[in-house]
Amino acid sequence: MSILQIGAGGVGWVVAHKAAQNNDVLGDITIASRSIGKCEKIIESIKGKNNLKDSTKKLEARALDADDIDALVALIEEVKPGLLINAGPPWVNVSIMEACYRTKTSYLDTSVAVDLCSEGQQVPEAYDPQWAFREKFAEAGITGILGAGFDPGVVSVFAAYAVKHLFDEIDTIDVMDVNAGDHGKKFATNFDPETNMLEIQGDSFYWDNEAWKQVPCHTRMMEFEFPNCGSHKVYSMAHDEVRSLQEFIPAKRIEFWMGFGDRYLNYFNCMRDIGLLSPDPLTLNDGTVVQPLHVLKALLPDPTSLAPGYKGLTCIGTWVRGKKEGKERSVFIYNNADHEVAYADVEHQAIAYTTGVPAITAALQYFRGEWADKGIFNIEQLNPDPFLETMPSIGLGWDVLELDPAIPPVINTLNK
Amino acid sequence: MSILQIGAGGVGWVVAHKAAQNNDVLGDITIASRSIGKCEKIIESIKGKNNLKDSTKKLEARALDADDIDALVALIEEVKPGLLINAGPPWVNVSIMEACYRTKTSYLDTSVAVDLCSEGQQVPEAYDPQWAFREKFAEAGITGILGAGFDPGVVSVFAAYAVKHLFDEIDTIDVMDVNAGDHGKKFATNFDPETNMLEIQGDSFYWDNEAWKQVPCHTRMMEFEFPNCGSHKVYSMAHDEVRSLQEFIPAKRIEFWMGFGDRYLNYFNCMRDIGLLSPDPLTLNDGTVVQPLHVLKALLPDPTSLAPGYKGLTCIGTWVRGKKEGKERSVFIYNNADHEVAYADVEHQAIAYTTGVPAITAALQYFRGEWADKGIFNIEQLNPDPFLETMPSIGLGWDVLELDPAIPPVINTLNK
Repeated sequence: MSILQIGAGGVGWVVAHKAAQNNDVLGDITIASRSIGKCEKIIESIKGKNNLKDSTKKLEARALDADDIDALVALIEEVKPGLLINAGPPWVNVSIMEACYRTKTSYLDTSVAVDLCSEGQQVPEAYDPQWAFREKFAEAGITGILGAGFDPGVVSVFAAYAVKHLFDEIDTIDVMDVNAGDHGKKFATNFDPETNMLEIQGDSFYWDNEAWKQVPCHTRMMEFEFPNCGSHKVYSMAHDEVRSLQEFIPAKRIEFWMGFGDRYLNYFNCMRDIGLLSPDPLTLNDGTVVQPLHVLKALLPDPTSLAPGYKGLTCIGTWVRGKKEGKERSVFIYNNADHEVAYADVEHQAIAYTTGVPAITAALQYFRGEWADKGIFNIEQLNPDPFLETMPSIGLGWDVLELDPAIPPVINTLNK
Repeated sequence: MSILQIGAGGVGWVVAHKAAQNNDVLGDITIASRSIGKCEKIIESIKGKNNLKDSTKKLEARALDADDIDALVALIEEVKPGLLINAGPPWVNVSIMEACYRTKTSYLDTSVAVDLCSEGQQVPEAYDPQWAFREKFAEAGITGILGAGFDPGVVSVFAAYAVKHLFDEIDTIDVMDVNAGDHGKKFATNFDPETNMLEIQGDSFYWDNEAWKQVPCHTRMMEFEFPNCGSHKVYSMAHDEVRSLQEFIPAKRIEFWMGFGDRYLNYFNCMRDIGLLSPDPLTLNDGTVVQPLHVLKALLPDPTSLAPGYKGLTCIGTWVRGKKEGKERSVFIYNNADHEVAYADVEHQAIAYTTGVPAITAALQYFRGEWADKGIFNIEQLNPDPFLETMPSIGLGWDVLELDPAIPPVINTLNK
């Protein structure tokens, strides 16, 4: 057995560490990225932390342009991985899936191929480019596991667990995500500022009474008491798993919510008001043409630089309301991740950690034959039990909190 | 008689309109700027508003690089102006004064030659480059009038008026400046964003008990009730006239204060925190090098574009406290300018209007022989009476408000 990992950013960093810690099952590891230096830096960190469990297995870096399908095919044919783990940026998903199809190689990723905010790439169409591979993957006799991060990812496993064990009938599914940690900077983003700022600006889509509803960002808000993190304001946002949950789990309303502090939103609004969040070309007095968003990216701290000093917890979970045996029920199934614990384990922060740990947890299910059917699967379609049994040993615990079923979500509509 | 005006920005726009309205005294007008198109646009506006009082006099545009002393000398020798009015950016003051000296041409400007925030260009040294011309101007038999805008400018005339008529002894001089107008934009600057943002970031200097005190921007604040504009928070700031008032008018404390709304400061602080107000080169991912401040300049509305919709009043004045005939006295000598009135008169907003009107009021004193001694003069050195008698007819009224001498300035020290 062996894996080929594409991508050496923050998520790639954690995936590689976790793969190394589990290489007795996963086998040889090859990490490929446009920048081989980034792969080598990860390998150095893995060795420095003594995270390579079986030191007789290979751990190698390769340079690769993942947009180049022929180069990808050549690398796959050389490495012959049992599973390709895609930890690259979303826009390479489709070319990697095509290369997997051509080489009959199983595939796993952690987010959709689209930007979720441009016309035709929004939530209702989010999985179309990847679901188009369903028949091809089944025909090739390979497995494709889509959206195996935390959100998308574990939050959908929580929903599947709720369907299997806790509810007879589901009314609402609210995915809740807050980062209550502090990186000590006045303003910084936890992942690529360009991706982050585009995602946050996009309209939110939620499923409500058999139809998609579209609203501007930051116009639907609620306050939620997060276990061990206190009360936070969360805002309805476009997110991948709203689409897949809507496909596979019947519910009246399905929505994704992300916590933003007033301070974060103040910076965001100022930057948006002056035009700094625009991807459109801007001509300076001297004729230089720049994208304002690229200027912002160069101004802000590199997200990977935040990890060493990061303190505090994240809380991400799935709030499910419905009925069990005729009675109303409300549960919050969640994880708390600790930035400092993540750093001690893999020298990265909890945002990347909560995405990378589930990817390897899912990879282990694939290699154990639990999640190895032929075809394309979103993670909520698969048996949640072995996954949730494994995840704590890979680094992320989880818990079920019973809430008062008489208290519904109180959603506030805000002016843009 | 005739004038040569250098500069065709916002202040130049108003200076030219006001010169045209008074060309029976000022004579032929030549407007020169790096961009002849900007001069032509002003001339078009003057003609459109029928502001050329004596249509037999010339009104002409010329292209000129004011940094090029030889080109300046050639233009002066060709035009042979009775007075050169410098409405250009501060950094051309010294080369224009040199050209005036060489051609024996009298000179008038509205602000100092330095940026007020770089090392060696701060308030204590602000007038050094221009005061260095004192002997040269006297020897050449020409007049140089420095700082003849509103602030610097009229506020110093108000101080001279207070010395001459209202006080025997002066304790404190606080120059107070608020723009209570609304341009309808979320964020915009009233003059060049680059100059404005550098000026605001600089440390403030004030004269206090025989010494210069230096404090970070926005760390000294008071609230002041501005006539017809209500109460506003004003912040101690570096400004030209603090230096010249200290030179010519004995007082215990001399300080400049500018009003900033909480909303303005919030934008300012956000932009500063993320590094967007820096003049230092920034390298983008693709290798392009930009100055963040130049990007901001390109993002923000062109200040001249704000004029048509601008509403509300400005209030700028001089708060003088001291003694008259043994009794404590406190007066605020001030002007209110109305953005809409300014626009109706000269198609520009009140910020430029309050700078341009005093320049022409001063030019008229020069041509009438009231302010025509040989040498270099700051405006507080000259007889305030004829100037203040003329100014209302040029467009700006003024008034003296007696304040309760028992109420001192309440200055709050804020954390940076």
